[in-house]
Amino acid sequence: MRRSPEFDLIAAIRERLGDPADSGVDVRIGIGDDAAVTVAADGSARAVTVDALVDGVGFRRAWCPPRAIGHKAAAAALSDLAAMGAEPTELYAWLGVPDDLDRDATLELCDGLAEVGARAGAALLGGDLTASGVLAVSVTAIGRAAAGERLVGRAGARVGDAVCVTGTLGAAAAGLVLLEHPELAASVPGAEADGARGRQLRPEPRTAAGRALAAAGAGAMIDVSDGLGGDAEHLAAASGVGIEIELDRVPLGAGVAAVAAAAGRDPVELAAAGGEDYELLCAIPRAHLEAGREAVAASGTALTEIGRVEPGAAVRLRLPGGRSVRAAGHDHLRRP
Amino acid sequence: MRRSPEFDLIAAIRERLGDPADSGVDVRIGIGDDAAVTVAADGSARAVTVDALVDGVGFRRAWCPPRAIGHKAAAAALSDLAAMGAEPTELYAWLGVPDDLDRDATLELCDGLAEVGARAGAALLGGDLTASGVLAVSVTAIGRAAAGERLVGRAGARVGDAVCVTGTLGAAAAGLVLLEHPELAASVPGAEADGARGRQLRPEPRTAAGRALAAAGAGAMIDVSDGLGGDAEHLAAASGVGIEIELDRVPLGAGVAAVAAAAGRDPVELAAAGGEDYELLCAIPRAHLEAGREAVAASGTALTEIGRVEPGAAVRLRLPGGRSVRAAGHDHLRRP
Repeated sequence: MRRSPEFDLIAAIRERLGDPADSGVDVRIGIGDDAAVTVAADGSARAVTVDALVDGVGFRRAWCPPRAIGHKAAAAALSDLAAMGAEPTELYAWLGVPDDLDRDATLELCDGLAEVGARAGAALLGGDLTASGVLAVSVTAIGRAAAGERLVGRAGARVGDAVCVTGTLGAAAAGLVLLEHPELAASVPGAEADGARGRQLRPEPRTAAGRALAAAGAGAMIDVSDGLGGDAEHLAAASGVGIEIELDRVPLGAGVAAVAAAAGRDPVELAAAGGEDYELLCAIPRAHLEAGREAVAASGTALTEIGRVEPGAAVRLRLPGGRSVRAAGHDHLRRP
Repeated sequence: MRRSPEFDLIAAIRERLGDPADSGVDVRIGIGDDAAVTVAADGSARAVTVDALVDGVGFRRAWCPPRAIGHKAAAAALSDLAAMGAEPTELYAWLGVPDDLDRDATLELCDGLAEVGARAGAALLGGDLTASGVLAVSVTAIGRAAAGERLVGRAGARVGDAVCVTGTLGAAAAGLVLLEHPELAASVPGAEADGARGRQLRPEPRTAAGRALAAAGAGAMIDVSDGLGGDAEHLAAASGVGIEIELDRVPLGAGVAAVAAAAGRDPVELAAAGGEDYELLCAIPRAHLEAGREAVAASGTALTEIGRVEPGAAVRLRLPGGRSVRAAGHDHLRRP
């Protein structure tokens, strides 16, 4: 299967590092999932993830105010915890500070980090600052699960499971189109344009939905940060299964159709390849699907079945006409 | 007291974020120490720190091979845990990967991270990679202390305490001089030049000494990463005390005198202002000093008394002739 250079590199690092079993910590999930999971003697689990944004990759300072940079960096890390079903407790941040980021902008960036953290229940407890030629923000998010609570990795999808997504996809990509091409906004209703830009600039992690899905019995979960196709590939590869997704079942975010029309793009392509929606993609046994739907609805969003887990190893995105395409994910090592 | 912009900014962030007490975690030490400390219901404590290196700040790719970059980044983060007296358990790393860092170099960098982690008992369990215009490595290190074990912050120095340092200072700064000015190496004995360069490229965190000092009753501790003067200032400010250091009592690392002579520099200045030695500076009540010395000796290095905690708020570095100078620390926000 085609793999991004980033995916290959992480696999090579994991292989090279070998088994961490002799480090004195009980590691349940190591490198290569949304977060690493360790288990304490009392059975409680801790999930730790690191996610980062760099100017030009993940945001552009030209259109992303400092508070939104902090917001998005924290949301990206918290989204990894959401994809495990963990309860966030703490954030730690490293800022690479260029000469032209002044004191006020740096403080606003920290405000953005702390605000998103606080909404998810996580305190910003520490970090570090270093001079850097490029503005970069790396966020470490720590979450927990009590003894007996499930945390969900990428590897538990089984043939026959329903493949579902929370919320809607595509609005973050539509927002990016508007931020990169502001002249298109004139052709898009104001509320839809605002909504799409907000989704790109200030995504919210699906913390409650992730915990609800873990409790309801989801078998595997990943956040949609790289794009539906690419993230489905990660889930399929970790689980050793194939996945088929019917793209016409994917719920489109507000503004996606209007922005796609204005930009001459396909709305389904924005939803399937755009990434950065920070929704959750999960595989859930059919016996738990209704419970999952109800739990996600109680958390304030919807769970939509968009495909199924199949034998094999291929991820197929089936287009409305019956054609299917191979998944193509976002590569974090590719510059925009 | 004069403060670096970085120090000021961290203080402003801490003030702005306010009290994290309502986050559901029991925070014993928050922003502004070497590591944040949270305490679990069973009384065990967890210390978390983030430290980072950026090309041009902390290393230069021109003289720092990839494995040494990983080594130094992990050592810097583990040194923060050593300064708390914590037992390292895990590392997580974010790499900002420029176009010209190839796959093999990236894997070697990870080898360096993992090797230093393994020696300190910490497994590299996760991380993230992002394309970046500049090579950057941010490392999150997590450590623990069992219920009843002490972790030591910066704020516990008391008037009358002895001020002590582990090992020797200045060799990392001497190594930097040789790496930046390789033509000077001809005037320095080969073994001393190798030792100094090794101290700059491959520092080792004082994990065992830090745990020994915490157990022996050190009141406050910090790692010497910014320079003796600057780090003494951080410790004094956090504790609300003054510190006087007699520079002629500071143990000089191997090669410091020879490199200083070759470069026309003052060896004491290399030891006092250079930083990056990753030794531990502590304030310890005189009643515990002998126990501290013995415990550090058992860990494989020496503890040397170099000054005392005094009333007031000033950090004075007393020169051999009797003159004293105000401390001047390294600023991580200043480019080299």
